[in-house]
Amino acid sequence: MKQDLQHGVIEMAHGSGGRAMAELIDQLFLKHFDNQWLRQKQDHAVFQVPAGRLAMSTDSHVVSPLFFPGGDIGALSVHGTINDVAMSGARPLYLSAGFVIEEGFPLADLERVVRSMARASREAGVPVVTGDTKVVEKGNADGLYINTTGIGMVPDGIDMEPRNIQPGDRILINGSIGDHGIAILSQRENLTFDTDLQSDSQPLHTLVSAMLKSVPGIRCMRDPTRGGVAATLNELAQQTGLGMVLEESSLVISPAVQAVSELLGLDPLYIANEGKLLAFCPSGEVDKLLAAMRSHPMGQNASIIGEVQAENAGMVSLNTCFGGQRLVDWRYSDPLPRIC
Amino acid sequence: MKQDLQHGVIEMAHGSGGRAMAELIDQLFLKHFDNQWLRQKQDHAVFQVPAGRLAMSTDSHVVSPLFFPGGDIGALSVHGTINDVAMSGARPLYLSAGFVIEEGFPLADLERVVRSMARASREAGVPVVTGDTKVVEKGNADGLYINTTGIGMVPDGIDMEPRNIQPGDRILINGSIGDHGIAILSQRENLTFDTDLQSDSQPLHTLVSAMLKSVPGIRCMRDPTRGGVAATLNELAQQTGLGMVLEESSLVISPAVQAVSELLGLDPLYIANEGKLLAFCPSGEVDKLLAAMRSHPMGQNASIIGEVQAENAGMVSLNTCFGGQRLVDWRYSDPLPRIC
Repeated sequence: MKQDLQHGVIEMAHGSGGRAMAELIDQLFLKHFDNQWLRQKQDHAVFQVPAGRLAMSTDSHVVSPLFFPGGDIGALSVHGTINDVAMSGARPLYLSAGFVIEEGFPLADLERVVRSMARASREAGVPVVTGDTKVVEKGNADGLYINTTGIGMVPDGIDMEPRNIQPGDRILINGSIGDHGIAILSQRENLTFDTDLQSDSQPLHTLVSAMLKSVPGIRCMRDPTRGGVAATLNELAQQTGLGMVLEESSLVISPAVQAVSELLGLDPLYIANEGKLLAFCPSGEVDKLLAAMRSHPMGQNASIIGEVQAENAGMVSLNTCFGGQRLVDWRYSDPLPRIC
Repeated sequence: MKQDLQHGVIEMAHGSGGRAMAELIDQLFLKHFDNQWLRQKQDHAVFQVPAGRLAMSTDSHVVSPLFFPGGDIGALSVHGTINDVAMSGARPLYLSAGFVIEEGFPLADLERVVRSMARASREAGVPVVTGDTKVVEKGNADGLYINTTGIGMVPDGIDMEPRNIQPGDRILINGSIGDHGIAILSQRENLTFDTDLQSDSQPLHTLVSAMLKSVPGIRCMRDPTRGGVAATLNELAQQTGLGMVLEESSLVISPAVQAVSELLGLDPLYIANEGKLLAFCPSGEVDKLLAAMRSHPMGQNASIIGEVQAENAGMVSLNTCFGGQRLVDWRYSDPLPRIC
């Protein structure tokens, strides 16, 4: 039977393991994600791996709204997990996708999400090889949640762990901060701007690969998502027992992000990013690494934003443009829920 | 700061990437799942694998209620994914866990789930090595959803795919049918019985391993979860273009499952199982396989329930106890939503 992808909605039957679910998988998921693994219609995928170190990461995506400037939950769920895998230095290989869908959700919206997810997966070269579909009654989910789990192989000789971080290391970022969180917020608050306010959602694995080719000795990488650069650095400062000092003048903040942040009293340092990474680099190799980042399309606006120090252990501080210094504290909560 | 695990509830802050989330991870997830990978507090886990075939499977769990006789969403989410991985013949190695939690959910209930999940993971010898926590506003999830994704290594020489199934193959199952679905249903309908009605939720990987040791040439295995034995066999009949005939007299159905099914007009063939597998075996090896199953604690009630045939292509039928034959059709929907 043919599912009505234009006018139909998700029914409880689509998650029940019967014919309705098989039809939805064939006519929607398989159509867009099509690959040799999904075509086998098993509850698992099997693929060959070489001996070595495998990296695994998982992310459940509950972003609201589902569609936002510069992306949607589908593309985001691909980029988010690819980035988490890539932060280990690994080359991402395969993704799984688990959907929890609310009864009544339009099939046309689901197809729009899955099409976007499939495109993101194809463009990144990381196929979705296995999946799962669950349906919950109307009112029991906010449209759609997507879990993606990814695995990848870590190249020999690469070791990126917080414990590698040393005093004197430089902290780099591949571009502007706060774009994703502010793009989501602008949708919620119905803010409109002349400027182009877009999520920075993008897959960072090719940038990571270029960076490691240039400087294999990068100490550690992290993607500053929920809680932004501030939360990520505070967590690492706590874990390593080191201090981190940022230079405000080196932070790249777009005029639109700056404007919205001022309007709403937000600090871009705490706003989520979905296409950014922080890298800790031995000071002697920082120029080489910065050059490598800037010659990659996703790192054109890369900059050195700070330094690791033995002093002020466990703390993050900021040298302001006006010559002062202030603490960037580890907040209990992020001001923007459900941005990923 | 200490989270109040006895009286506290989940707040939006617990999913925000700030200090509250770090505390929850440390004081609840890390406490119970504790292992070398989680202790590194990365967004990924890295581990060594040998060269070979890796199997990957994912399942989002939305079972309602969260606690039921014989299990809960925590143990189920471990067993479900271990079983999906094991059905490829693989030895499960590692799990990821992604939590979507509703604001206001009691931390005491969350700890109960996580404790159970950690116990199931320990008992199965398959650690949860990486995770993710998201919180959605009150009313946007039904307490708690858990995605688990698992990977495992397929031993050399093992190949379990539907295309291997041949006419003449025997169909085996490791015990009674319908226990999980009926146990869940009994909770929803407030049915009480003198008999002990319990979910069969259990991890099948050691049974699979014993079966493959005895008969490496098993054609294919499947766990008959949503939609039960009927949906699983219909799907395989469609995929292979073969017919499947079941013997009603060989099906094992507990008196309690039989009683509830009759009361509510349900057919146990369509009811979900969470600790059962169907195996397709060349007829010449079926006695050996049956003996191997029966000598494993999870296969003591194993039986040969049917046969594959070239006739009645794509269909499943049942030889009844009264000497008739009826079609076991592929239903559009499962009568029991959200059983896993």
